[in-house]
Amino acid sequence: MITGQNYIGNQLSATGNKAYKTFNPKLNIENDYVFYEASDEEIEKAVILASEAFKTFKNTTGSKKAEFLNAIADEILALDDILIETYVSETGLPEGRAKGERGRTIGQLRAFADLVSEGSWVEATIDTADLDRTPIPKQDIRKMLVPLGPVVVFGASNFPLAYSTAGGDTASAFAAGCPVIVKSHPMHAGTGELVASAIHKAAQKTGMPNGVFSNLNSAGIQVGVQLVKHPKIKAVGFTGSIRGGRALFDLASQRPEPIPVFAEMGSINPVVLLPEATKNNGEDLAKTYAKSITLGTGQFCTNPGLIMGIKSEALDRFIQILSEEIIKIEPSCMLHPNIIGNYEQNKTNTLRQNGIHLSAEYGNDVIANHARQTITTVEGKTFLQNTTLHQEVFGPFSMVVQCENAQELETIISNLEGQLTGTILAEEGETSTYSAIIETLQNRVGRIIFNGVPTGVEVCPAMLHGGPYPASTDSRFTAVGIHSIKRWVRPFSYQSWPNDLLPDELKDENPLHISRLLNGIQTKESI
Amino acid sequence: MITGQNYIGNQLSATGNKAYKTFNPKLNIENDYVFYEASDEEIEKAVILASEAFKTFKNTTGSKKAEFLNAIADEILALDDILIETYVSETGLPEGRAKGERGRTIGQLRAFADLVSEGSWVEATIDTADLDRTPIPKQDIRKMLVPLGPVVVFGASNFPLAYSTAGGDTASAFAAGCPVIVKSHPMHAGTGELVASAIHKAAQKTGMPNGVFSNLNSAGIQVGVQLVKHPKIKAVGFTGSIRGGRALFDLASQRPEPIPVFAEMGSINPVVLLPEATKNNGEDLAKTYAKSITLGTGQFCTNPGLIMGIKSEALDRFIQILSEEIIKIEPSCMLHPNIIGNYEQNKTNTLRQNGIHLSAEYGNDVIANHARQTITTVEGKTFLQNTTLHQEVFGPFSMVVQCENAQELETIISNLEGQLTGTILAEEGETSTYSAIIETLQNRVGRIIFNGVPTGVEVCPAMLHGGPYPASTDSRFTAVGIHSIKRWVRPFSYQSWPNDLLPDELKDENPLHISRLLNGIQTKESI
Repeated sequence: MITGQNYIGNQLSATGNKAYKTFNPKLNIENDYVFYEASDEEIEKAVILASEAFKTFKNTTGSKKAEFLNAIADEILALDDILIETYVSETGLPEGRAKGERGRTIGQLRAFADLVSEGSWVEATIDTADLDRTPIPKQDIRKMLVPLGPVVVFGASNFPLAYSTAGGDTASAFAAGCPVIVKSHPMHAGTGELVASAIHKAAQKTGMPNGVFSNLNSAGIQVGVQLVKHPKIKAVGFTGSIRGGRALFDLASQRPEPIPVFAEMGSINPVVLLPEATKNNGEDLAKTYAKSITLGTGQFCTNPGLIMGIKSEALDRFIQILSEEIIKIEPSCMLHPNIIGNYEQNKTNTLRQNGIHLSAEYGNDVIANHARQTITTVEGKTFLQNTTLHQEVFGPFSMVVQCENAQELETIISNLEGQLTGTILAEEGETSTYSAIIETLQNRVGRIIFNGVPTGVEVCPAMLHGGPYPASTDSRFTAVGIHSIKRWVRPFSYQSWPNDLLPDELKDENPLHISRLLNGIQTKESI
Repeated sequence: MITGQNYIGNQLSATGNKAYKTFNPKLNIENDYVFYEASDEEIEKAVILASEAFKTFKNTTGSKKAEFLNAIADEILALDDILIETYVSETGLPEGRAKGERGRTIGQLRAFADLVSEGSWVEATIDTADLDRTPIPKQDIRKMLVPLGPVVVFGASNFPLAYSTAGGDTASAFAAGCPVIVKSHPMHAGTGELVASAIHKAAQKTGMPNGVFSNLNSAGIQVGVQLVKHPKIKAVGFTGSIRGGRALFDLASQRPEPIPVFAEMGSINPVVLLPEATKNNGEDLAKTYAKSITLGTGQFCTNPGLIMGIKSEALDRFIQILSEEIIKIEPSCMLHPNIIGNYEQNKTNTLRQNGIHLSAEYGNDVIANHARQTITTVEGKTFLQNTTLHQEVFGPFSMVVQCENAQELETIISNLEGQLTGTILAEEGETSTYSAIIETLQNRVGRIIFNGVPTGVEVCPAMLHGGPYPASTDSRFTAVGIHSIKRWVRPFSYQSWPNDLLPDELKDENPLHISRLLNGIQTKESI
């Protein structure tokens, strides 16, 4: 069922001569399938097809787009065991995780189907005419959100389903009315091809135009660079490293016509441990965090990589229990030898810095590609002065910063780069004492958590997954939840436009029965 | 009352040594006042003050922000004659225009006051907990829009009030909760200082923090460059030329922490004249367009600089009448000798291109700084091949493109750069025949107009003033109307946050009685 070829629109194609394989980290061997990188001609053809497809896809009704999105979900489910097996063989992640992520992916597709089927998401806004107004008559103006054009999606290494081929970026772009070209992640190219086949079946069954979706293989950066620079590409979605995301952002910004890039990138997800909570709940918190740090072998962008507290016996005790607990946990497999290679290298580099203490590290006897979880500690002053320590170590790693006092803690927080999340661990009584710290943390993050863990990104309308740079390249958008559709749309106004030529969303009679801002009042009424 | 100094927070200051004057184009003499460019220290101080002010201003309630915005409007009105006289002396625009623009500015401030006073604009979204959910409990998550931080605003040469010191960018940024530093436009520095004084009075009367607003003078680019590169600046608003806007966009994108720039830039506002309309209404349309092209001496970003039709006797007749009508109109004064200098130079450069025909130009006997309105014509093929002809000639200038057929017209439209507006002049019966042309035009513009003129940007919620690059640097936002506030805010999520620590917008009891998306339902109910 896996061919190793690219989907150029609905055609399988492999005209290039670069080939690569995926890797099974659990068995520590290459997988069998050979994947062929997209050639220049294939890239060009995919873009031209997407651009042509946009002409009809942008006018596809919400209910037709919903059929398409639901059909993708159905076809992904129909792949059944082969999808789960391929996922496991390309990631080393357990079957339960594969099934859970599939459920999340299906849920996202259906949530966007519901959104566009209902239709009010276009933010229809109508100001009717007042032609008797003096000195200048008021014209009829009507506005709604319309799609930007073809979108390129770069899938994530750590979420082969939910943040990749048919993940949140693709689902939201389709919902918006944008064709999608996926630059398949090379670590799970087989999973990607299977999901691409599901999207194609769904597109054919629901009558979507050829070119609404393409899936391009690539082990290097050249395919991505060419896509982002192509004049017919109008937006980019990316999940991955700061280096990768920033490179795409720079390319896109330097185009003759700059285009928006939403890159969700690195984060160390600072956790602030306030004194009373440390004293009263330190042991429980240490146990909880040992689990959060090692969840999914630490391969989550919301992994708590930084824990900060004020020096006290209770904080020492927290560190001690965290260190004891974390090495009780059985090491697990990372996604790829390159990922564990980076983990070890970043960890070594961090440990080489002055003033860093190794508090716990799982012993040496681990299976190939299994990560040794690690806890380090550092003084506040040392952390503040050395920004190398602020860099993410992607994996089951966390650093505990021991601050002299609340002032130093606040200074450290205000000097952190932008983060996806921040967490406050506190007794309710002490929040007012440390309100400046809480306020400062809010200003550096996209989501703030009270007495919980940052891992676990609920897919719901209220979720913000993003944040100030470098958590994302544009803090005004989210990568998760229905509002992530706003990345791919622009408002568009019609002035004095004949009613029968208006899109249904803006017609007098409101045939879609959507909620609209009509002369300043939100209503489902017709005119 | 005009001191020539900078407002650094609420202090007048002039420590720099560069000075300049404004110019009265109507009298063709310099105005008396001397303005002092902001020094490096003044820039730094203004930014630090803004950054400090943000700490309290971001938490200022909607009703307090509304008081501030309404007080600004009141203080601008209280400036009375001196404001109008200064405006006229620095622009050459007539008193009626000054008063009209003041009214528009006041209206914008009050509209934003109403918006934040009502409060639902924060898009509050709440998903309550389900702690019994398996396998993972669902946490309570609540999201709302929060301000980005200090914003730098670059005022427009052609709108000293409505798009400058207290114009739409400033009003929307204040409404969002962002402090503003205005880089005053050197052509109307006196008007700018007066309005800045009004903002300061309003800030003091309503208890806003020092640094919520600063006004920096500058005749060159250095002050603006320093502001945009400053790490404590979090967003930029600009109205002006493509060259200026792109330069700021590039600076902002290349920062270690890139920040959003909303630049509203050039546009030639294509007008498509369909055959039946040309035949039946050509004469009326020609008369209407002669007025639209010369309105405000063509100094509107929505000025119709490009009119396209299919060759016919009726189109020839339209050109003839347009040419006859336009030279009947008395020339008017441009904003500044530099503006008319650019107008003449761009016009000359256009007329020097192969295949351009001069169809009408007002005779040579004009007063200093008064612009001679001009109509040119060109064949479709020539226009298509020479992109120099696609550039804006800012002033009372328009080019009529004579296409061989509908196909050529469509090709030309699809090759245009992004535009603020596009206009279709048609008989209702012919819209279906030319649906591909209309569809193609929609894809290139931010606002499309049926049987009207693009000049005149109504301030209302349904207005989109922006569009695909280079009409703006980000087509996902508007510069006009209440939704322009979205440029300066980011969504922010609270997870499991104690109710009493939540902002009022997200509290269970909904004390502000705003509309919220509560578990998927839009409602004003409490929880």
